[in-house]
Amino acid sequence: MRFATYSAEGETFYGAVTDAGMIALSPEFPQWPTLRDVIAAQGLPVLEQAAQGREVTHADVIYQIPVPNPGKIICVGVNFPDRNAEYKDGSALPKYMSLFPRFASSFTGHGQPLIRPPENHTLDYEGEVAVVIGKGGRRIATQDAYDHIAALTLCNEGTIRDWVRHAKFNVTQGKNWDLSGAIGPWLVPFTDPAQLDAARIVTRVNGEVRQEDTLDRMMFPIREEIAYISTFTTLEPGDILITGTPTGAGARFDPPRYLVPGDVVEVEVEGIGLLRNGVEDEA
Amino acid sequence: MRFATYSAEGETFYGAVTDAGMIALSPEFPQWPTLRDVIAAQGLPVLEQAAQGREVTHADVIYQIPVPNPGKIICVGVNFPDRNAEYKDGSALPKYMSLFPRFASSFTGHGQPLIRPPENHTLDYEGEVAVVIGKGGRRIATQDAYDHIAALTLCNEGTIRDWVRHAKFNVTQGKNWDLSGAIGPWLVPFTDPAQLDAARIVTRVNGEVRQEDTLDRMMFPIREEIAYISTFTTLEPGDILITGTPTGAGARFDPPRYLVPGDVVEVEVEGIGLLRNGVEDEA
Repeated sequence: MRFATYSAEGETFYGAVTDAGMIALSPEFPQWPTLRDVIAAQGLPVLEQAAQGREVTHADVIYQIPVPNPGKIICVGVNFPDRNAEYKDGSALPKYMSLFPRFASSFTGHGQPLIRPPENHTLDYEGEVAVVIGKGGRRIATQDAYDHIAALTLCNEGTIRDWVRHAKFNVTQGKNWDLSGAIGPWLVPFTDPAQLDAARIVTRVNGEVRQEDTLDRMMFPIREEIAYISTFTTLEPGDILITGTPTGAGARFDPPRYLVPGDVVEVEVEGIGLLRNGVEDEA
Repeated sequence: MRFATYSAEGETFYGAVTDAGMIALSPEFPQWPTLRDVIAAQGLPVLEQAAQGREVTHADVIYQIPVPNPGKIICVGVNFPDRNAEYKDGSALPKYMSLFPRFASSFTGHGQPLIRPPENHTLDYEGEVAVVIGKGGRRIATQDAYDHIAALTLCNEGTIRDWVRHAKFNVTQGKNWDLSGAIGPWLVPFTDPAQLDAARIVTRVNGEVRQEDTLDRMMFPIREEIAYISTFTTLEPGDILITGTPTGAGARFDPPRYLVPGDVVEVEVEGIGLLRNGVEDEA
């Protein structure tokens, strides 16, 4: 079962996703206004029960970010061997992962356009798997890490590439343009390690495969990400970790192949879903 | 007038600060659970009116972070000329400011201990002025920037120095240890540019002055910080900008002078206040 946050008829709901449309569930749980609250209070299984035998309530919806108000969104940088080599700076594999936060405002939902701002046109894609924390914790052991994941979703970790290197350190300003990336389409409850360990991620631009890799090749596996991050910060229910992108972002081509209005970017992992976004210039 | 968020008798309040104690105001405004809500809905003047002629309600309080739930906390890195020179890497003055987010969980309130974790003992201080956004906006013009500040407060932007350089880029993991920094003691409404433009900031450790500078020497003045940051991300009421620290952090001494349990760090700006925190090893 899959769960989404969406708008319909001018209101925002969360509910279960079916091939025929959404089953609104948020009206049943006024005590939990968002999926973050559901995850923090009870976990997603309570929604699976509530959706049983229910009719579709909304066929025509606008997808929102699945967890609209995460306490933190932490992204892992360079995390596949080839991608590190792409930097061609002769550096050895890093000992520690590179981390940077993104604000929720830098993401839009499935089906909504990524926004290219007038200030800079080096908008780039990065397909990634995102994990949503269920049970919070500090100093989570690597072998226990998967017990802290409530759900999986996808991310296009869209970037204004030129602004990533404005400053000597820190990619903050290239990674946080309003609506430059996307998360979604929905949450898939995490119940089996194979959902991550055997996952293959593909990113396509206008149907052409640009990124394709398997998560088992990550330099810093997701279990280690959770263990390392929770060393310094307490992970809370609804926090989102964006786990790293394979080689093949537009900036790595010569000349670079940045996104332009009219492009369509798809990030797909079998068993999780397909996140599709167009590209538009800012109005 | 000054406004604080605090705990007393096991409950959390916000209220006006007087020399005799707090005047609880949050019970008067159930529609605004936090100072962030007050700032977003009405601004702080409504509290000034509400506090007129009222009696002190709490004399013995525990200070919390003044805005307990900011949407974002963005810090400006190296921002005073001498401090840039301290890095001794021969680099010219940067063209753009370095920015990094911190999570609210990395800060404690005035009077509470900074926590030195068992994993690493390079806990360092950085005294800074923090500004709280009142009126939100995107692409705010430099000359209008001060119109978007609701209040001022102070920050000890405490850092686990070794972890700042774990990764090739991004200082995230050195800047986000739970309770490694502090914000407070309170909010001072921003009504006059001179509150910032003429401000002198001093940081003391056990009474010894370690940092002392005036904000008019910033490489990137606060007006420019607001303009630049709001180019890429919409600033919202309650967002906090931590504006940069003068030279003299403990890491710059040879040998470094990191904080140890029992130390007392004070960050002071006349007209804003004095933020004082001890240091303790994590329990």
